[in-house]
Amino acid sequence: MSLLKQKTYQPLTNESAVELALELKIFDQHAKLSCKEIGDGNLNLVFHIVDKLEGKSVIIKQALPYAKVVGESWPLTLKRAKIEADALKIFGQIAPDYVPQVFFTDDVLAVTVMEDLSHLSIARTGFIKGETYPLISKHIGEYLAKTLFYTSDYGLGPSLKKEYVQQFINPELCKITEDLIFTDPFIDTETNDFEEGLRPVVEELWQDEELKFHVNILKKRFLTEAEVLLHGDLHTGSVFADNYETKVIDPEFAFYGPAGFDIGQVFANLLFQVIANVEQRDLFLNHIETVWNVFEDQFTQLWNTENKDDYAKSTTYLNYNLTKFFEDSIGFAGCELIRRTIGLAHVADLDGIEEDQPRITAKQRTLDLGTILIKQRKEIKNLSSFITTVKEAL
Amino acid sequence: MSLLKQKTYQPLTNESAVELALELKIFDQHAKLSCKEIGDGNLNLVFHIVDKLEGKSVIIKQALPYAKVVGESWPLTLKRAKIEADALKIFGQIAPDYVPQVFFTDDVLAVTVMEDLSHLSIARTGFIKGETYPLISKHIGEYLAKTLFYTSDYGLGPSLKKEYVQQFINPELCKITEDLIFTDPFIDTETNDFEEGLRPVVEELWQDEELKFHVNILKKRFLTEAEVLLHGDLHTGSVFADNYETKVIDPEFAFYGPAGFDIGQVFANLLFQVIANVEQRDLFLNHIETVWNVFEDQFTQLWNTENKDDYAKSTTYLNYNLTKFFEDSIGFAGCELIRRTIGLAHVADLDGIEEDQPRITAKQRTLDLGTILIKQRKEIKNLSSFITTVKEAL
Repeated sequence: MSLLKQKTYQPLTNESAVELALELKIFDQHAKLSCKEIGDGNLNLVFHIVDKLEGKSVIIKQALPYAKVVGESWPLTLKRAKIEADALKIFGQIAPDYVPQVFFTDDVLAVTVMEDLSHLSIARTGFIKGETYPLISKHIGEYLAKTLFYTSDYGLGPSLKKEYVQQFINPELCKITEDLIFTDPFIDTETNDFEEGLRPVVEELWQDEELKFHVNILKKRFLTEAEVLLHGDLHTGSVFADNYETKVIDPEFAFYGPAGFDIGQVFANLLFQVIANVEQRDLFLNHIETVWNVFEDQFTQLWNTENKDDYAKSTTYLNYNLTKFFEDSIGFAGCELIRRTIGLAHVADLDGIEEDQPRITAKQRTLDLGTILIKQRKEIKNLSSFITTVKEAL
Repeated sequence: MSLLKQKTYQPLTNESAVELALELKIFDQHAKLSCKEIGDGNLNLVFHIVDKLEGKSVIIKQALPYAKVVGESWPLTLKRAKIEADALKIFGQIAPDYVPQVFFTDDVLAVTVMEDLSHLSIARTGFIKGETYPLISKHIGEYLAKTLFYTSDYGLGPSLKKEYVQQFINPELCKITEDLIFTDPFIDTETNDFEEGLRPVVEELWQDEELKFHVNILKKRFLTEAEVLLHGDLHTGSVFADNYETKVIDPEFAFYGPAGFDIGQVFANLLFQVIANVEQRDLFLNHIETVWNVFEDQFTQLWNTENKDDYAKSTTYLNYNLTKFFEDSIGFAGCELIRRTIGLAHVADLDGIEEDQPRITAKQRTLDLGTILIKQRKEIKNLSSFITTVKEAL
């Protein structure tokens, strides 16, 4: 029976994934296809289907009805596959250079068939191996400017924007962020995960009421401020890159939230390299500067030329927005630094430091820097003040 | 044919409204019912159906597929009838003392059958006639505390709240507010309406870039900050009252927005009496104080006892929220003062001042006060500073 006519969900196998690809006429009907499941199995199945003779390949991604994170498993609706597919299409229209092409989606099967990016590497993995991807920060800055402007009230107009807000209500995946980024790391709870050597600093952090106050404010921004359609999980593990190309993948956490959240996650995940990769510190600080500078330039240009709200075009009001985005970014970056160090989901940049003492020191500095960024985000008024703050903390 | 089984919309007549009431078994099948259409015909039909013998009565409100405001007519979807009915049900569960009881709703017919409140008066009309409704401000303060707390992330939990956000996406009616409150009064556009005597001050206001900057910020809060389920149009024409009872009606503008919007509209519409009704100035200033004091007390109590987010319970963070609500309220009140003076929809409190010079002076003061509230909302840190600002401006 045709997979495309199925009315119920079932997980694909290598065989049925190939069948689906053939049914979609992506390959010649007589092509000899090989198929390998290459997902990490936590949230999704990912099939890599190749026609070696023709040199063609494709990815079929299918959501699983549960999530596994570090051994824990909980049910998740398949609706996130639709969120991801819809977000890929919108971001792909806005910033086609930086988003994988989507060939087909199906809500019942919870699949997205898309461009194979296996000639690129996951940026985090590449960074850890010593790659520096000279264009990645320019590309990400441009991706951010375009996606955050064109999905805002100013880029879309308020009516269409409200339809998008409705379409991207994403309670389940937002809840993961609300808990794992904005709550759990700041209280003594089971989901946290850190090495014993960090316990004294972690317990101090849990006592810090001023920090908790600021995190509550940032959490509220995440909960209430529907500024733009966010990627929602824009760390360096969601970016494919080489020295020429950059592609942002996996927007299943997409929803309408504060623009600074995506920017802040980019900042934080570049900061992990600034912290861990001492020899390339300046290079990764430059990447951070480039992300913001390119974002600011291009957002400004779009604001002035593509703004749907004539009434909102003034430079003073643009600067008000940029200042707010920057302040939010710094705060959200601080939250990401802390949660990736002591929360449920870690990053290999830090965990991969082999020797105990340097690793613990790096993690302590990450926690210190995170705390400073959260508390002082209003005082860190511009890029140079941000960079100085980072250098002083390390 | 049964009206309840109809699959298409049609406007009710007196006859079919009675038929519907009988079909719903609200009255005895043999009751002799009288029916009168009492709506203003701008947006809705309102049928008042009475069984004089039994002393029973009911209201049937039906949305029309267009809006007429001051002679202009534009199409409006009937979806707003569902928004209004859903909002009445939610607000009715949260604050039953202050919301009319709903007996029946139908999305196809776009009708809501509800409690007859004709023993009460529209508060604005009553105020203009010299009524002062001693309990109205306490009641509104309580209504605000309950509806704004229980529909927030802290009263509902983030998942259910997101479902509500989705349910109450209301682009059409929000657009009316975005244009008529936050845009048109601040630029020279056809929808504005003011007497020639005001032209010099109005033209000055249109030149005020600082004012426009602040209004853009407030407009952005309205566009993006999904804090609570707002009534969305909470002026004194949406309130029924007598000396003992208060009922808030007509939430067809309901949507998730910043809490200060509802509070600010209440402030502004009480300020119209402060401005126009010189003899009762202190009484209406007291009403404003009572609204805020009761709101603040009861919101605080709900925050401490009913908060779904343990992590957010601290007094410092509560105060951060109250301060933000207050600041927003002051700013939104300023916008309402200005738009009701020179925008499309006026208030009888000001327009009803018969003599030219006092009326123009009152309107000039309204514009001045509105401008001050918008620009200085951050400096007006508390109730007494607000009251002082009002007194100084008048």
